[in-house]
Amino acid sequence: MKNILLNGCNGKMGQVITSCVEQRSDCRIAAGFDINTTMLADYPVFSDPEGYTDDADVIIDFSHPSALSGLLAFAKKRGLPIVVATTGLSPEQVEEVKEASKKIPVFYSGNMSLGINLLMELAKKATAVLGGSFDIEIVEQHHNQKIDAPSGTALMLADCISSALPEQPRYVYDRHSQRKKRDKDEIGIHSIRGGTIVGEHEVIFAGRDEVVTLSHSAHSKEIFATGSVNAALFLIGKQPGLYNMGDLVASKN
Amino acid sequence: MKNILLNGCNGKMGQVITSCVEQRSDCRIAAGFDINTTMLADYPVFSDPEGYTDDADVIIDFSHPSALSGLLAFAKKRGLPIVVATTGLSPEQVEEVKEASKKIPVFYSGNMSLGINLLMELAKKATAVLGGSFDIEIVEQHHNQKIDAPSGTALMLADCISSALPEQPRYVYDRHSQRKKRDKDEIGIHSIRGGTIVGEHEVIFAGRDEVVTLSHSAHSKEIFATGSVNAALFLIGKQPGLYNMGDLVASKN
Amino acid sequence: MKNILLNGCNGKMGQVITSCVEQRSDCRIAAGFDINTTMLADYPVFSDPEGYTDDADVIIDFSHPSALSGLLAFAKKRGLPIVVATTGLSPEQVEEVKEASKKIPVFYSGNMSLGINLLMELAKKATAVLGGSFDIEIVEQHHNQKIDAPSGTALMLADCISSALPEQPRYVYDRHSQRKKRDKDEIGIHSIRGGTIVGEHEVIFAGRDEVVTLSHSAHSKEIFATGSVNAALFLIGKQPGLYNMGDLVASKN
Amino acid sequence: MKNILLNGCNGKMGQVITSCVEQRSDCRIAAGFDINTTMLADYPVFSDPEGYTDDADVIIDFSHPSALSGLLAFAKKRGLPIVVATTGLSPEQVEEVKEASKKIPVFYSGNMSLGINLLMELAKKATAVLGGSFDIEIVEQHHNQKIDAPSGTALMLADCISSALPEQPRYVYDRHSQRKKRDKDEIGIHSIRGGTIVGEHEVIFAGRDEVVTLSHSAHSKEIFATGSVNAALFLIGKQPGLYNMGDLVASKN
Repeated sequence: MKNILLNGCNGKMGQVITSCVEQRSDCRIAAGFDINTTMLADYPVFSDPEGYTDDADVIIDFSHPSALSGLLAFAKKRGLPIVVATTGLSPEQVEEVKEASKKIPVFYSGNMSLGINLLMELAKKATAVLGGSFDIEIVEQHHNQKIDAPSGTALMLADCISSALPEQPRYVYDRHSQRKKRDKDEIGIHSIRGGTIVGEHEVIFAGRDEVVTLSHSAHSKEIFATGSVNAALFLIGKQPGLYNMGDLVASKN
Repeated sequence: MKNILLNGCNGKMGQVITSCVEQRSDCRIAAGFDINTTMLADYPVFSDPEGYTDDADVIIDFSHPSALSGLLAFAKKRGLPIVVATTGLSPEQVEEVKEASKKIPVFYSGNMSLGINLLMELAKKATAVLGGSFDIEIVEQHHNQKIDAPSGTALMLADCISSALPEQPRYVYDRHSQRKKRDKDEIGIHSIRGGTIVGEHEVIFAGRDEVVTLSHSAHSKEIFATGSVNAALFLIGKQPGLYNMGDLVASKN
Repeated sequence: MKNILLNGCNGKMGQVITSCVEQRSDCRIAAGFDINTTMLADYPVFSDPEGYTDDADVIIDFSHPSALSGLLAFAKKRGLPIVVATTGLSPEQVEEVKEASKKIPVFYSGNMSLGINLLMELAKKATAVLGGSFDIEIVEQHHNQKIDAPSGTALMLADCISSALPEQPRYVYDRHSQRKKRDKDEIGIHSIRGGTIVGEHEVIFAGRDEVVTLSHSAHSKEIFATGSVNAALFLIGKQPGLYNMGDLVASKN
Repeated sequence: MKNILLNGCNGKMGQVITSCVEQRSDCRIAAGFDINTTMLADYPVFSDPEGYTDDADVIIDFSHPSALSGLLAFAKKRGLPIVVATTGLSPEQVEEVKEASKKIPVFYSGNMSLGINLLMELAKKATAVLGGSFDIEIVEQHHNQKIDAPSGTALMLADCISSALPEQPRYVYDRHSQRKKRDKDEIGIHSIRGGTIVGEHEVIFAGRDEVVTLSHSAHSKEIFATGSVNAALFLIGKQPGLYNMGDLVASKN
């Protein structure tokens, strides 16, 4: 039973992590830190990390960039691994995170969803095996309020796939304006927009009489909570260093 | 048990129709017509329709435009309904078909696939119900040798959907070059190309927290055989006139 | 611009309906009724319907069974159509609803989701067209805490399909214990359980070399809000009587 | 440009392999062996392997078990790697294959489809990453004439997944007869049967608010041709030994 310290425990994501941990038997939240010290769950809440003097195994930080410095100092002093899942860090803060990782294990990832990071790993693997003879296309679906297309994740997937191909492919977003066969080096990227769709990503490998499809469907932003708990358990016992979701996925072979 | 006369019975589609009819208990092929009079199945084959003097219920023509005139004359003389599934008719031959339909029931359709025609009917119905509040997108998939995009069927679907909307929508083929929310009046049309995919069509209706998807997957061109047999049975007992797959689908309420 | 009166406006579903209406240009909420009279949106809130004396076009009730009698009385007095979306009515209350429908138009449906009701209508239509020659299978997916299988909606779909078949089919839930070909009269029903899946329903029509698939994906229970607003607009101008989602879907041809 | 010798070149699968190789630029068929020595493509055909005296890189055998002994002797004498894709070998012949693999590289696999073998590898990887917290379900679809359920491939997938789980899971084929929540240790296996579906396999990993799906769709038995060509190219330059599709997939990291 691993003991987790949760920074930002009373925020929206903090509560989701709490509920996520409650459903597991391999870890518990030993204490939470939050400027609002109301006890919303069955663990004590401190306004200052220093208020907690017991043992612990790992820290998850899902709060605000302004709280980062103090928390990293606490983690270093106590020799505790830390998952930094707070977003919106400044370049200076990212440097601070890297600096801390020389003394303690630090987990910091662009996307905390386990599923999406796994999808990238599997897509890379599939590309390595099928790349030469299968055509690759990416389809993503998001709600009708999203202003960018394709999604950042779709581009990350495409770049991931490209890195596993012998030659740099060409991304194709529109086929209606031309009359020609598909080129071998194309990766079609299609952006469907509609309703309130949270996020769907699909990679299609189409070959001679067979198709392999890898897909991920997100139903809420709460998937980042699950990801951060997995990251925390992964981090315990690691050497000081900077880790990300790719390391976590790669470790599970 | 209905008796079908099959013109072009020894051609590729003729043989598929034969095998398709063999699996049904509501009809049989009474005789076939073909320039090659080899008996490939358990029915007699005549080079000239006039060679067949028994009763019959309906004719299916899946042969060559050059055989059309003679066959229509035979159908009119015998008062037999006829399904013209032969493709590549000239405008004059289409006129001939229409002319014949004043005397006998004639079935003639741009696409003989029952499934695709049903999909169009269902998409129209779904648009009538959801059109105001759901966003509509079309995704089609075909093999990497196809030179046109989107597919003709995808455009037929889009036009079908448009006809059920209060205002003319705008077809959108590419979203990557702009940063803006989806407009209400868009229909996104996406063309996936890869491997040897025969033909997939999907209509997505995305609303607030729910998505309705209608899709058709073709695995071979033989689906036109099934469609023509259904058309033949539909035609028996009808008044003289010109019928198509839309009529068949609409009749089954 | 139609004026809606919303009973239970400050409840969870009431707030969802408010937000749903805000996104439409064909209707607005003129006033809300709730025991909690805090104004959460830009319309006045009354504890008693009688407090509202202006004109209106329709009432939506998404509150508690105990408020039903008073609200029906108000609706009858003012001659206003009413959508009863409150669940958990007693048999006596259902009688009261029917009684009211002799004087005013009343909408009352077992399932307020437009998408699911449309799916049933489309599945019935597809069965009528394909039933004789295609095999029909139903797949539903729900979260791992659901105790019943198949889902009530999957059974409603199966019954809907059965009603469109010439002979009563047999529902099959397990094929692993036998070695035999699929019988023509089977409808396979498959219950996938996993994670937090809200609700997926898929009807597969598999024929000779083609497959038609109709599916519905629910991402939250809020889809009932959208359904009730559509019901309200449908009800305006109708004759007194009892209406349900099937009527709404059928009306949109 | 690698030179392939193709045993059984004029058989059905031989012709498919020929057409498959013609579309590639990294290999060619240098000669074919067949009892029917008609030249169907642009390479010479010999009734006896000994007739071919030029250099070559690898042999693909897609013929008849009775031809195996002679071919293995030829391969050993010439020191050529060989892909044995012929099915229906007796236990003695399998022994002969293993014996030959002490002297030359021999590729022999239960399932020659690259896609299906990749799917197994990816499912194993995904299970290692998600296994603890995601629920796993398998859905397979086949035509209505198939007498066994689940498919052999679905069971291979389930066993593959089991091998990556810490504890042996329980396969569940039917949920309709009980009222209970899904157990953590279940793997649901669902067999859809309909029409002429060639073969669809899908592995669903359902977690908290996210779902990862891996699927394979086969459109003909010709996918084994593609697999055997890939196996041949993989085998060139290898040490003597027995190789299978798992090795090929694993090699491509």
